Amino acid sequence: MRAPVLTAAEVLAFTEEVFPQMQGRFAIHSLGPGVLTGEMKVTEADLRPGETISGPTMFTAADCAFYLLTLAMIGREALTVTTTCTINFMRKPDIGPLRVEARVLKLGRALCVGDVLIFGTGMDAPVAHASLTYAIPSRG
Amino acid sequence: MRAPVLTAAEVLAFTEEVFPQMQGRFAIHSLGPGVLTGEMKVTEADLRPGETISGPTMFTAADCAFYLLTLAMIGREALTVTTTCTINFMRKPDIGPLRVEARVLKLGRALCVGDVLIFGTGMDAPVAHASLTYAIPSRG
Amino acid sequence: MRAPVLTAAEVLAFTEEVFPQMQGRFAIHSLGPGVLTGEMKVTEADLRPGETISGPTMFTAADCAFYLLTLAMIGREALTVTTTCTINFMRKPDIGPLRVEARVLKLGRALCVGDVLIFGTGMDAPVAHASLTYAIPSRG
Amino acid sequence: MRAPVLTAAEVLAFTEEVFPQMQGRFAIHSLGPGVLTGEMKVTEADLRPGETISGPTMFTAADCAFYLLTLAMIGREALTVTTTCTINFMRKPDIGPLRVEARVLKLGRALCVGDVLIFGTGMDAPVAHASLTYAIPSRG
Repeated sequence: MRAPVLTAAEVLAFTEEVFPQMQGRFAIHSLGPGVLTGEMKVTEADLRPGETISGPTMFTAADCAFYLLTLAMIGREALTVTTTCTINFMRKPDIGPLRVEARVLKLGRALCVGDVLIFGTGMDAPVAHASLTYAIPSRG
Repeated sequence: MRAPVLTAAEVLAFTEEVFPQMQGRFAIHSLGPGVLTGEMKVTEADLRPGETISGPTMFTAADCAFYLLTLAMIGREALTVTTTCTINFMRKPDIGPLRVEARVLKLGRALCVGDVLIFGTGMDAPVAHASLTYAIPSRG
Repeated sequence: MRAPVLTAAEVLAFTEEVFPQMQGRFAIHSLGPGVLTGEMKVTEADLRPGETISGPTMFTAADCAFYLLTLAMIGREALTVTTTCTINFMRKPDIGPLRVEARVLKLGRALCVGDVLIFGTGMDAPVAHASLTYAIPSRG
Repeated sequence: MRAPVLTAAEVLAFTEEVFPQMQGRFAIHSLGPGVLTGEMKVTEADLRPGETISGPTMFTAADCAFYLLTLAMIGREALTVTTTCTINFMRKPDIGPLRVEARVLKLGRALCVGDVLIFGTGMDAPVAHASLTYAIPSRG
């Protein structure tokens, strides 16, 4: 796998410009060839009774992480979209930021395929695992 | 498939009590043996540039619809949780409420399996399709 | 959804030419705009202890059914390949042919997305449900 | 993750007794806490035109690898069954044995969740990635 074409700061700046809702929500801890680790803040609206975090919030964490990683690998292509995501929910995360570990398994011309492990605050075992495919717009 | 054990009004009331965030967001249009149709309102936070609706919002619509249908079939079991969801994103929805058509394919003792078609406002073709499994807590 | 461009006989003949292993194994019962029903024979090698049919055999039935339907919709494109499949196994089929009901949910230029319900012999409830995406080769 | 309760030899012997079709087809290279690597032989019936290996064969490799790993972790429970599998096909494998790397992400009382990477002979990049869930029979 080759090196990313954007730095962590560049891909975050581009994403926050395109998705103003993400402003300040996501931090990238490391970025390398086909791999990204980071963290997503959790807000009041993400919580569920039983002192846990909602499924859609975990989906958002996986989707954002893989979007950031895909853009870091291919460059500023805002029209890159999720075509499919499978997410397995395995444990209840405690309340706190969600850590993510994303990796690209295949970067083709039309599709980027990979997966994301999601961890709760202070938990060693993953709370969810997502497999994602993004469609990359053709540069016609 | 047998008939639901809760009415549409009963399952909505129970869900809004357990998830106050859902208050007023979801409407049930019809409820029958293993089938539910409904609609989810979309807010400013659900929008994306390009005048469309975010992937996590479509995931939320599918998850809520299948949660309501599962509870309607099994009764008030708040601890029922999503174990896995695969969602295929097929078209960009226009801005407006999302219509959902959910069906149960298997209602077992431990797992409820089914799928949800999501439609955009004024669109005949589905914008997304989700396959979901919910774990049903054992009644000890 | 528009009409298929191949007849049931044409798509079966083309598939058996490309995949000689399928010879005589699959029958198409009906073919319409984005929908196909059919049946796959089960052989000794497909069986499992407990008088049932293996998971890989059900995967094969779903994959073949969606391949036939996709080709019927787009024409003779042998290089059409599965990019992703999610299959939920719900009940144990009795020994006997597997019936399939396949539908296309989106036929785009690059991807064909849909699902397949699989039924066992003499069973009303589905034994498995698969969601599939096929990549369609570009015609340069 | 705790250590397996069966050795590689024990789990292979048990599986070949339960599924005689697997006799001699699968080899385990390593087995540790929640992880297994191995190899599946490919036969004439697994090939496809274009000198490659069929999708159902890759599904079989993923399913067998995760079955062996699950049994190694929980013991001789032949009734353990796949409830769901998502498989992403990423590259065409050359003809030759398929190598597999399986890991358990969650081993619960009722469900075992994990994934499997599949590699072709002499290929560094994975040809397919599968996420699987197995249901573990209750020991009532």
